[in-house]
Amino acid sequence: MDVLGGFPSTSGDEYPLNTTRFIEAAARNFPDREIVSGTGEDQFRYTYGEAYERMQRLANALEELGVEAGDRVGVLAWNDHRHHECYFGIPGIGAVFLQLNLRLHPDQLRYVLNHSEPRFLVVDETLLEVAEGVAPEVDSIEGYVVMTDRDVEAVDTDLEPTYSYEAMLADADPAYEWPFIDETAAYSACYTTGTTGRPKGVYYSHRNIYLHTMQLANSIGLSHDDAVAAITPMFHGQGWGLAYSATYTGAKLAFPGRYRAEDPEPLVELLSNEDITVTNGAPAIFMPMLDYIRNLDDAPDWEGLQMMSGATEPPLDMMRGYKELTGAEVVHAYGATETTPLVTMNFIKPSLQEDISDEEQLDLRRKQGLTVPGIETKIVDPETGEEAPHDGESVGEILVRGPWVTCSYYDDDRTDAAFTDDGFWKSGDAGTIDEDGYLKITDRIKDVIKSGGEWISSVDMENLLVEHPKVVDACVVGLEHPEWEERPFALVEIEGDASVDRAELDEILSQRFADWQLPDEIEFVDDIPKTSVGKNNKQAVRDQYAEAYLD
Amino acid sequence: MDVLGGFPSTSGDEYPLNTTRFIEAAARNFPDREIVSGTGEDQFRYTYGEAYERMQRLANALEELGVEAGDRVGVLAWNDHRHHECYFGIPGIGAVFLQLNLRLHPDQLRYVLNHSEPRFLVVDETLLEVAEGVAPEVDSIEGYVVMTDRDVEAVDTDLEPTYSYEAMLADADPAYEWPFIDETAAYSACYTTGTTGRPKGVYYSHRNIYLHTMQLANSIGLSHDDAVAAITPMFHGQGWGLAYSATYTGAKLAFPGRYRAEDPEPLVELLSNEDITVTNGAPAIFMPMLDYIRNLDDAPDWEGLQMMSGATEPPLDMMRGYKELTGAEVVHAYGATETTPLVTMNFIKPSLQEDISDEEQLDLRRKQGLTVPGIETKIVDPETGEEAPHDGESVGEILVRGPWVTCSYYDDDRTDAAFTDDGFWKSGDAGTIDEDGYLKITDRIKDVIKSGGEWISSVDMENLLVEHPKVVDACVVGLEHPEWEERPFALVEIEGDASVDRAELDEILSQRFADWQLPDEIEFVDDIPKTSVGKNNKQAVRDQYAEAYLD
Repeated sequence: MDVLGGFPSTSGDEYPLNTTRFIEAAARNFPDREIVSGTGEDQFRYTYGEAYERMQRLANALEELGVEAGDRVGVLAWNDHRHHECYFGIPGIGAVFLQLNLRLHPDQLRYVLNHSEPRFLVVDETLLEVAEGVAPEVDSIEGYVVMTDRDVEAVDTDLEPTYSYEAMLADADPAYEWPFIDETAAYSACYTTGTTGRPKGVYYSHRNIYLHTMQLANSIGLSHDDAVAAITPMFHGQGWGLAYSATYTGAKLAFPGRYRAEDPEPLVELLSNEDITVTNGAPAIFMPMLDYIRNLDDAPDWEGLQMMSGATEPPLDMMRGYKELTGAEVVHAYGATETTPLVTMNFIKPSLQEDISDEEQLDLRRKQGLTVPGIETKIVDPETGEEAPHDGESVGEILVRGPWVTCSYYDDDRTDAAFTDDGFWKSGDAGTIDEDGYLKITDRIKDVIKSGGEWISSVDMENLLVEHPKVVDACVVGLEHPEWEERPFALVEIEGDASVDRAELDEILSQRFADWQLPDEIEFVDDIPKTSVGKNNKQAVRDQYAEAYLD
Repeated sequence: MDVLGGFPSTSGDEYPLNTTRFIEAAARNFPDREIVSGTGEDQFRYTYGEAYERMQRLANALEELGVEAGDRVGVLAWNDHRHHECYFGIPGIGAVFLQLNLRLHPDQLRYVLNHSEPRFLVVDETLLEVAEGVAPEVDSIEGYVVMTDRDVEAVDTDLEPTYSYEAMLADADPAYEWPFIDETAAYSACYTTGTTGRPKGVYYSHRNIYLHTMQLANSIGLSHDDAVAAITPMFHGQGWGLAYSATYTGAKLAFPGRYRAEDPEPLVELLSNEDITVTNGAPAIFMPMLDYIRNLDDAPDWEGLQMMSGATEPPLDMMRGYKELTGAEVVHAYGATETTPLVTMNFIKPSLQEDISDEEQLDLRRKQGLTVPGIETKIVDPETGEEAPHDGESVGEILVRGPWVTCSYYDDDRTDAAFTDDGFWKSGDAGTIDEDGYLKITDRIKDVIKSGGEWISSVDMENLLVEHPKVVDACVVGLEHPEWEERPFALVEIEGDASVDRAELDEILSQRFADWQLPDEIEFVDDIPKTSVGKNNKQAVRDQYAEAYLD
């Protein structure tokens, strides 16, 4: 694989976009700016200048180990300073940084490894077990670099050969001359895992990461005066790129290390102690954090903190809760592994800032937001490809295209079905775009209910059902119907031994749905079928109740 | 010329960087955001949405006129909304937007036109005279598009054929489908004019402008909440890119229209009335503006305004004056036509914010600043190419390389001498870089005085000499010397019939120069020889006094 690229050259246009430039700039302009890693007693602090030297040592150590341009090197690690060193050290020599999701089912992780064929794995000591679970069936791996503060001899593992990350760095030359790398060469890879099917490999180029880094910094308004906490797992679409953008601007950077959503205290302390101004995460982590804060005698003062929230629509209560208790703003953004990920970000544009009330603003800010410059989004009929109007009502499949949107899955025959001929990625999300340009996801395309030529959002219906104080969970699917093509069908789980009237649920649903859109049947059940990642297993529900409207 | 490019494609890496995306994004997300053009009674206001429609009309009108991809279209215009329309309308169809300096000597302008061979000129009505002065000797021009609010028939000109910009737009289709353009194709051209020699053509690619636009926005911290006044002439390296970055972020945009440095009132009113938060210019315009403000009964409140100042080092008095009188911050940036232009920007980095006094900060902020991410700068011995240390003392020629730095002059045999083999542009500026990374220009390389193996800055010496209250102007050059290679020689112009002792001047110079560095001779003269653009004509001085130290 020829990845080392076209510069020096007679054309400035061939100066390649290599992310190495960003850490170089941080080390040059902000050598004293702090990087904080971990929380509590094990917290570690150093600077961009020191990090840059270690990245150069890592580059030399990898070459010493025999890693060559184009080789894949997998990383199994928490959000910490060593993981950040790998972000630059591995791709800086032309190798491909393979992001490994430490929470993946072993079958899936094994598939990812056998598909991407890494020569080495860099593994945090506490994650050796994950690697041990899959390594015997992955032939490509030649060795394991263990991230630990201890002597690697003292580490108990079946894996071999093992190398000590720290010893390798200590022995390596502290200066490395970064080669220019073809900007379209693979920089890193992340495998996207849906609820079904094999993971699909998205390979990001240097160019792709470079441009995304600049745009994310712009969309957030990040500068060297900021302090950033990168909480989104760094193996999820490179932690949504936040650590890159922080490095690019020279912002102070904090990594939480290993953390659990159920124990938010260290995260809250990190945000407070380090005077964090920008962080990222999802309701799954921000909700427990808010509950924890509610129970404190004194809520922290986070005035000026932007909390980038992704994955799912941010609940109103969460946005209000943070604002009222701490002063922090929750800012929702949308994207996917295929889009690096930034597609939209939600902020109230100047023309709306005075026209709408605070409550309307909150409501608007739950949408996925405005498409960032450089990216094209449209909503189309998945069958005809015709664009739906931007009226906030008409639904279509969301298509995305732009310089940091992939156009293929690596070595995968599912590529054809996932992209249009003119380079748009088919997100599989159904959504609307309103007159002001705000995108809103209403459903997964495959879960939309098509009834009498109209589309009904199963997700909107679920969100309303759980607003009933006695409803714990809800799942809505479309079932085949002889007259209407499909009709909505709901499963509802009630708290304890309470009971709820159908009429109460209809009243709630009527806030947003017309009478003809209401579910023909609502079943009260004890448990709603779930997938392995805890989402509603709609396929199972559809299968189980397939005949309900056909009898 | 094949400039229409490689998308749709199967690779997201081939999605071309076309600046059309920026105006599309502004029209999509901020259609109601205002663009203000001109001052006083003729002031015109519209929105990004309306501007975008007119840009599409312009694209259609140009194609109707026969303009094809690769054709050059020259623009002679003030900083106004129509000029901004040309920024997107001309390159959007694949043609090259040729920037024409309306203050150029006719000989030079004629050279530029004959070298670039535009097929059409777009000319502001008030600048027809400039075009008339050169057009008869430029064969390539097929027609003139006149920007005027009047009926084009009523315009008195010898040029033919003429077309009305407004009538063309009115007749054109309001929708245009922008083609994808090869990102390395020329987007625009700007000719750099030194004090000597023919102008040299720098051709910017779409990619180049795209990346520069993002970086400038980041370096300024520009967002959709800002209001930008683009004061730097839009034909000087596309007005340093500020209007692009404003469009990219959706900031409100104000253009001053025609203005004169001697009459700053309309500029001051524009900045105040439109609540401007970012503007750009140079001491040549900001100094008279400050004088005007000093004479007002009430200075305007410009708290929060960033004034980007380029061209020359910002005088301390100017920085202090704006801060004290208006609250505005002068921010210095450095670059050149060859660098699009952004190379450095000066801000006080976090690690210095608390360590140094306000006066030290002001002094530091006169330097050219920190090299922005993506760009590489170094200072080297012009003969050996060896890098000078970053100690704030050692002088070298400033070399610059990066994705928005050109690597050639178009069709010009001076390219070889101006670039290194590994793609650095030789700026011709001599400078230092200090331990903190701040670049400072000390002189033009050709004006540096080389004496006994050491370098003496002629510019620093001139700046000190004019600190004497009776000294009106000064010019320092190096003259050949049998023993020392060169020795400094100064011409000094004294106010009226005052007189100044040599000793007084030596005392001032001794603030920064050692005894052996002081000029051997200081001549008191009535007038210092100047170039056509009003700079010291050092070559003429060197020629006239060539024998002074040889006798």
